[in-house]
Amino acid sequence: MINVKKEPEKLLNKIESPKDLRKIPLEDLPQLCNELRQFIINSLASNPGHFASSLGVVELTVALHYVFDTPYDRIVWDVGHQAAGHKILTGRRDLFYSYRHFHGLKPFPSPQESEYDTFTCGHASNSISAALGMAVAAHRHHEKRHVIAVIGDGSMSGGLAFEGLNNASAMPNDLLIILNDNNMSIDHSVGGMKHYLHQLHTSSGYNRLRYWASQHLLRIGWLNEEGKRKILRFNNSLKSVLTGQKNVFEGMDIRYFGPENGHDVIALVRTLQSIRDMKGPKMLHIHTKKGKGFPAAEKDATLWHAPGKFNPETGERLQEKHSGEPPRYQDVFGETLLELARNNPNIVGVTPAMPTGCSMNIMMREMPDRAFDVGIAEGHAVTFSAGMAKEGLIPFCNIYSAFAQRAYDNIIHDVAIDRLHVVFCFDRAGIVGEDGPTHHGMFDMAALRPIPNLTIASPLNERELRCLMYTAQLPQSGPFVIRYPRGNGVLPQWRCPLEALPIGKGQLLSDGDDAALLTIGPLGNTGSEAVEMLRSEGINVCHYDMRFLKPIDTAILHDVAMRFQHVFTVEDGVRNGGLGSAVTEYMQDHHHFNVCVHRMGMPDHFVEHGTPHELYQTIHLDKDSIADEIRNAIKHQQTPHES
Amino acid sequence: MINVKKEPEKLLNKIESPKDLRKIPLEDLPQLCNELRQFIINSLASNPGHFASSLGVVELTVALHYVFDTPYDRIVWDVGHQAAGHKILTGRRDLFYSYRHFHGLKPFPSPQESEYDTFTCGHASNSISAALGMAVAAHRHHEKRHVIAVIGDGSMSGGLAFEGLNNASAMPNDLLIILNDNNMSIDHSVGGMKHYLHQLHTSSGYNRLRYWASQHLLRIGWLNEEGKRKILRFNNSLKSVLTGQKNVFEGMDIRYFGPENGHDVIALVRTLQSIRDMKGPKMLHIHTKKGKGFPAAEKDATLWHAPGKFNPETGERLQEKHSGEPPRYQDVFGETLLELARNNPNIVGVTPAMPTGCSMNIMMREMPDRAFDVGIAEGHAVTFSAGMAKEGLIPFCNIYSAFAQRAYDNIIHDVAIDRLHVVFCFDRAGIVGEDGPTHHGMFDMAALRPIPNLTIASPLNERELRCLMYTAQLPQSGPFVIRYPRGNGVLPQWRCPLEALPIGKGQLLSDGDDAALLTIGPLGNTGSEAVEMLRSEGINVCHYDMRFLKPIDTAILHDVAMRFQHVFTVEDGVRNGGLGSAVTEYMQDHHHFNVCVHRMGMPDHFVEHGTPHELYQTIHLDKDSIADEIRNAIKHQQTPHES
Repeated sequence: MINVKKEPEKLLNKIESPKDLRKIPLEDLPQLCNELRQFIINSLASNPGHFASSLGVVELTVALHYVFDTPYDRIVWDVGHQAAGHKILTGRRDLFYSYRHFHGLKPFPSPQESEYDTFTCGHASNSISAALGMAVAAHRHHEKRHVIAVIGDGSMSGGLAFEGLNNASAMPNDLLIILNDNNMSIDHSVGGMKHYLHQLHTSSGYNRLRYWASQHLLRIGWLNEEGKRKILRFNNSLKSVLTGQKNVFEGMDIRYFGPENGHDVIALVRTLQSIRDMKGPKMLHIHTKKGKGFPAAEKDATLWHAPGKFNPETGERLQEKHSGEPPRYQDVFGETLLELARNNPNIVGVTPAMPTGCSMNIMMREMPDRAFDVGIAEGHAVTFSAGMAKEGLIPFCNIYSAFAQRAYDNIIHDVAIDRLHVVFCFDRAGIVGEDGPTHHGMFDMAALRPIPNLTIASPLNERELRCLMYTAQLPQSGPFVIRYPRGNGVLPQWRCPLEALPIGKGQLLSDGDDAALLTIGPLGNTGSEAVEMLRSEGINVCHYDMRFLKPIDTAILHDVAMRFQHVFTVEDGVRNGGLGSAVTEYMQDHHHFNVCVHRMGMPDHFVEHGTPHELYQTIHLDKDSIADEIRNAIKHQQTPHES
Repeated sequence: MINVKKEPEKLLNKIESPKDLRKIPLEDLPQLCNELRQFIINSLASNPGHFASSLGVVELTVALHYVFDTPYDRIVWDVGHQAAGHKILTGRRDLFYSYRHFHGLKPFPSPQESEYDTFTCGHASNSISAALGMAVAAHRHHEKRHVIAVIGDGSMSGGLAFEGLNNASAMPNDLLIILNDNNMSIDHSVGGMKHYLHQLHTSSGYNRLRYWASQHLLRIGWLNEEGKRKILRFNNSLKSVLTGQKNVFEGMDIRYFGPENGHDVIALVRTLQSIRDMKGPKMLHIHTKKGKGFPAAEKDATLWHAPGKFNPETGERLQEKHSGEPPRYQDVFGETLLELARNNPNIVGVTPAMPTGCSMNIMMREMPDRAFDVGIAEGHAVTFSAGMAKEGLIPFCNIYSAFAQRAYDNIIHDVAIDRLHVVFCFDRAGIVGEDGPTHHGMFDMAALRPIPNLTIASPLNERELRCLMYTAQLPQSGPFVIRYPRGNGVLPQWRCPLEALPIGKGQLLSDGDDAALLTIGPLGNTGSEAVEMLRSEGINVCHYDMRFLKPIDTAILHDVAMRFQHVFTVEDGVRNGGLGSAVTEYMQDHHHFNVCVHRMGMPDHFVEHGTPHELYQTIHLDKDSIADEIRNAIKHQQTPHES
């Protein structure tokens, strides 16, 4: 499927760092790109990771490290999905087998892993701002450093990218922005900017003519370096003069070049060499194809964003199918949303660029006019939802927990102050696994609990998720947060009838006399396992599923305060500020000084990547750790009065 | 200074609601505008409020309520600074004397106050998203409702506005966006979009020609309503055809009209009538002058943004000067930043559009190349700072506490994960007073405490602020948050030598044996007053200034746990999640079950507007309330073992 020479990876094997890359003759770069592409395909076929984006930027990655003096020059990737090639070329080829494994190579570029990785890039749209900061610093330090931000058109829909762009010409810097335009974020890009970029591409034959002419002059060798720079400059001004046209980037005083073919590595190298040393902020607009070079991925880039294991020869995805397996929480959300929307015409759906990831595409297929993909724009997703809620619609606004951090002010200012009826469904709450520290949903409960007027809940299982969603859309429910994790639930039979759950009430899961365990969310199932273990040892734990962080069930808290010396709390959020803190505060406020609250939750450091199983063990939220904590406390029987 | 007829406010007095306004003949609207303007000037001269913005939109406000059927049609103001005229015309003229007073008219439009106020608008840039939501809802409900977002060019630099704009053409709606271009936010607008808008205004004579022609045809009455619409449509397509030019808004499939003179109320009415019923999203770009009609304010709109009391005849500002008065915290920040920057060449300043408000203009005057106003763009301010920090600069990034909520993810993802050395100075923390619930800095401590790697401090007074700033810029300090309030400090002599404070250490302010009081930040001074009061009654309180929320001083906590049954915490942030919670958690974690922690902080509801004095009383954080709380607990002497 890829044209590989008999002796595979010949060039790639020589490259221990970009220095080696720069020794390769220009004309061999296409061969290197083939090898790099094949290496990525072979690696990710058996070791799943983000796939299609990395294939799309193979040529760009090679060209950037070829032309620029990395790591002295800085490449700032926007979203590290695309960085497989970058990692492989920068000294991590031999470790690439460990990509995304616990203690292995990180899922995204990280300055903690390599000096070639300049900035954390798990959340979209931050590259221009960060790179602008670096470029301004270089200018201030009188360093001749080049700084390059590589941003996709999907990320360009994020407000942060616009803020950076808007600011780029306001201060002295020589920033180069590469706009990698593939008409995709994870799903297809949406919004006006997409049309705008498309028009830049098609609006006049001028760009293609210019491109052809300059490439021709370059190929026949008529131009020296200065000549190349001059012709590019001239082209640019000619364009303005001839057409009277300034595009938005030029209008913002950012020089604009392109669009160019992002898969012609030799042309890319020549263009980058030509514009490299130009003064002032500039943008090179290239067109690439997500999944380039792997036909199945080219055909369906969304499916192949992170395809899991696959056959590198045939392109067949190797899905492990277990019939009767519990569904993914996201699918329970998606199916239930559709069910609710069928019965309540006021329900609408809003997702910032994650229709597939959160399964809102289930509703979109049946009701395309009632579910809105607003692009990578979490703040707008919330405020837009608030506007609809103001007029009586009931938006279900689904955002990954970690990305919802971007809408913190919108939740407070645009929703909570006026108690607007927006239902927030925060997917990927808690440990997400291999995507690591930027993607774990650690902070939502602690950050949202102080906000007045919010109801905050987390379901124990799929049925609770369904019933919470039902409850949240009932009249007068006000702003309502439901947070649930990535991955599969626990109930193969999950299609329960929809019924209202009393707001602010938990439920008893099992009774016992030795201690109380209070859990919130699906980690309660781990808690139940721990309770079973302990029961077999003769320790009987009373286990409540709290369901609601806010309002918290004070009847349960009063009950456990009266009955138990030891109360354990378990949550898949930070230990400081969430459920454990709420329980501790209650005990103090109500003078239950005989109660010892043991808080179990995520630690006060960022949690690395790995499987959820590995990570929950590491942070002591697996069933053994929970059982240990309870067992130890009971055995020592340190009573409140002994301190 | 304003051309007022002999019988003042004759027209205005008839207007109890926009219905009355619509009965006035078109040709009398200029007179009404004069009266409205004079009413605003006279009112705000003695009852201070946001001034220059409201003067700038007098004609627009009148025209909007004249043309549109409010409140059925929705006007969404972006930042309510400008809404004085709107309040006066919508049934609140007689209450306008109470504007911004405790229990009086609210500082910004609020749906809780009037059905004419459609959306909370204390934070900039949210109008397009919210209005789009309303317009989509109207479409879905088959309502013929018009929805109009009024956004200033300053607010257009916010990423949220771009996200809304980018999304406006992606769904069926008839939204009208009014771009009120006055080249100002509070200070002058910055960034590429400003240049871009300027170019739209000046790039060709075409717009002026078109404007003149259509106005002429309108004036001589040759056009009926349909004719007006047609000529506008024709003009717009003609422009595209003639110049081959699409501006960014047109490129995003948003119809663009303008720029027009925003102070010609009759022309504005005619334009609005012409475009009112056009289908699809559209933008009308108008030019206005902040402070219009009041020469002093026209000359210096920043100074007259919120000028305090002034003489409405002479334009003289009536400043109450108290020599020897303590300085404002913001000025201590501004002066100290300059002092530090003189000694440390790596220090730079970053402010999102608040150089005057946070007094970074002091540094800007001396070091214009080292202090950056990035526009209304809090997220970018943080990520841009992070990029500079990555390269060894030490950015002091100053954001108002409530606006910093917009950068929550940037603080986590772009700064904290990699421990970048950004010094966050959050001004306006705690109660801000008359600006009310959108502006109080309530959430910062609770929201930031769970974030790993942050140091979080709040100074007791000006000297601590200076020394914390000095400490924060020392090598290896990592991400460092200093939060301090609006208004004046407590020390007339505040220029102390700069010295390092030990990180994570508080200080004893006064000793005593009856109870412990732990405070953080300037509210500690109120705490000290309470301690003095109690001392005169024979109750001796041991008072610690904690200084650091994180890391918290565990030596102090251990000490008070050993010595006292009653520990009181006082903070000007939400009660749940901040200092009080941290102290409570510590006591539980370390099994100090004999300690009763009494947490005093801001309540779990949004706090209204009023003077800080009034508000602190209301939420029981004044000295009497603090003393009461301590006195009652000591008198009842409910010990931990009695529960």
